[in-house]
Amino acid sequence: MSLVLGIDGGGTNTRCLVVDTKMQVIGVGNSGASKPDAIDHATGIKHLHRAIYDACKECGIDAIDTVFVGMGGVISDTDANIVRTMLDGLEFKTGIPIGIDHDIRIALAGGLAGKQGIALIAGTGSSCYGRTSAGKTWRCGGWGYLIDDLGSGFYLGQQALMAVTQAADGRGSATALTKSVLETLGLTDLNQLMNRVYYPHAAIGAIASLAPLVLELSSYDPIAHTIVVNATKHLANLVITTAKQLDLQNEVNVVAVGGVVTSSESFRQLLEAAIKEQLPTAKLQLPVAPPVVGAAILAFEQIGLTPSLSDLNHLSETLSLSM
Amino acid sequence: MSLVLGIDGGGTNTRCLVVDTKMQVIGVGNSGASKPDAIDHATGIKHLHRAIYDACKECGIDAIDTVFVGMGGVISDTDANIVRTMLDGLEFKTGIPIGIDHDIRIALAGGLAGKQGIALIAGTGSSCYGRTSAGKTWRCGGWGYLIDDLGSGFYLGQQALMAVTQAADGRGSATALTKSVLETLGLTDLNQLMNRVYYPHAAIGAIASLAPLVLELSSYDPIAHTIVVNATKHLANLVITTAKQLDLQNEVNVVAVGGVVTSSESFRQLLEAAIKEQLPTAKLQLPVAPPVVGAAILAFEQIGLTPSLSDLNHLSETLSLSM
Repeated sequence: MSLVLGIDGGGTNTRCLVVDTKMQVIGVGNSGASKPDAIDHATGIKHLHRAIYDACKECGIDAIDTVFVGMGGVISDTDANIVRTMLDGLEFKTGIPIGIDHDIRIALAGGLAGKQGIALIAGTGSSCYGRTSAGKTWRCGGWGYLIDDLGSGFYLGQQALMAVTQAADGRGSATALTKSVLETLGLTDLNQLMNRVYYPHAAIGAIASLAPLVLELSSYDPIAHTIVVNATKHLANLVITTAKQLDLQNEVNVVAVGGVVTSSESFRQLLEAAIKEQLPTAKLQLPVAPPVVGAAILAFEQIGLTPSLSDLNHLSETLSLSM
Repeated sequence: MSLVLGIDGGGTNTRCLVVDTKMQVIGVGNSGASKPDAIDHATGIKHLHRAIYDACKECGIDAIDTVFVGMGGVISDTDANIVRTMLDGLEFKTGIPIGIDHDIRIALAGGLAGKQGIALIAGTGSSCYGRTSAGKTWRCGGWGYLIDDLGSGFYLGQQALMAVTQAADGRGSATALTKSVLETLGLTDLNQLMNRVYYPHAAIGAIASLAPLVLELSSYDPIAHTIVVNATKHLANLVITTAKQLDLQNEVNVVAVGGVVTSSESFRQLLEAAIKEQLPTAKLQLPVAPPVVGAAILAFEQIGLTPSLSDLNHLSETLSLSM
């Protein structure tokens, strides 16, 4: 019986999972960031190796038959090769298949349990990735907070701050966001805002942390409502564009990942309506399984195996990994 | 005869000017950044003091009768007090008037040669400030690149990168900006763009440096044209809002400062047309004198003097300071 190793490497955590072909969990490993552009190379390697050693504790690394690594920020072959060198020194059997791709691919594979379709991420950032059964793929969005990430948590927070400052300097209308934003950021005065916003490294998270507030106020504040509606339109545009590029038409499955879409039922409804306006066959759903299970699914694929949906549901429950 | 000291403290340079009441230049001083949130406190003080000592070389600091400091980022009294402490240890005569305000106030005073009106800055960032003859003031915009700076050089570059990435991932139409942006940034492939954009500290300047390219392509590329038109609308909105808040109506003088407005005649024409749509009495002009001369004008005001326009023109020519 074969053993597969799935790896989900991100900017905050690295998760590893070893399962056998009966979908029994052999081992799990968790450690810190391994994404190459989020952390220094040596520490990233240390985190990655620690999570792999932990997951392989029961079976030994040399028992693994296939590996798939989903890693944040892997776009080009150069990026994939950097991740490949991060695996140097591990005692894998010679010649086993080792796949490496960006983390939204494993989010798609886990989220739709291996089916074709589209993954939409809306957390601090936003991006979209689709894959057909023939293996054709398309990425859309995800160019980062300075020039993209439309519809993301950062976008919601940024638009709220724009509304608040423009209300203050006379360009915009008064909004309930002003009081709530000041309270949430612990400020007594908007003149303190710029210091808060432009502290390096703290800024993006601080701005994205306003997203829940905007979602909450959108039920009665017209400006917050407009921001939320625009966010769903931007996210829908990512999905619609990806579907068009892949010529996906009949029953397009879309899995939505990330805090912005998973935290609010009403936001998901608005988003689904915006997608269906141009893609009536689309079905929006929450993930079946977390990305690390998606990595295991893709590792299985490399040796010609496809786990069943009930196996995957069982596996996800066993893991109880947070998504 | 009195001697006045005008100071223009920014995030890159500090400029000082000593003139007498006959508008003869007694001394000038130039040094590095002194803006408190752009540089460490000790270095900011060193730069400020060096520029002041250089400007006062001929007369001695104890000969100065009035001082005005325009300093980037001074919004609250707290900010002004920080700048006040930066002057500690200089041997000014006891009790002379020392005014301190943000740098767009001295840009207005220099730009309109002391007349009431509005200053619009559109360089890397954008902001607007107006002052009536009765001393009523209004600031609009200038909340920085993450949540504002609409119509600025950063905005032009950011919109260009959005257009280029969205053309690549299928959300937008093809544009001549793609080839030019890649060439200007020295990239062979858009996959290299995110590394370039998200290097800390380099990003804002690198993005704003694309502004001239957008202005140039706007004559034939429809997407670049739309970006430029939107930028002029955002800048016009700053001016119109400021004029409304100050109830300025008859012959509103607007001085435009910063690379985006000073470098392109056609941009200024579009901008003036956008302003006049809602403010038909507005007159857009380039600065009469640079901000450091504005600081001197405001220092003169503190002792009840108003230099004539011809004196100021002569002074600016003598200085040949770049604006």
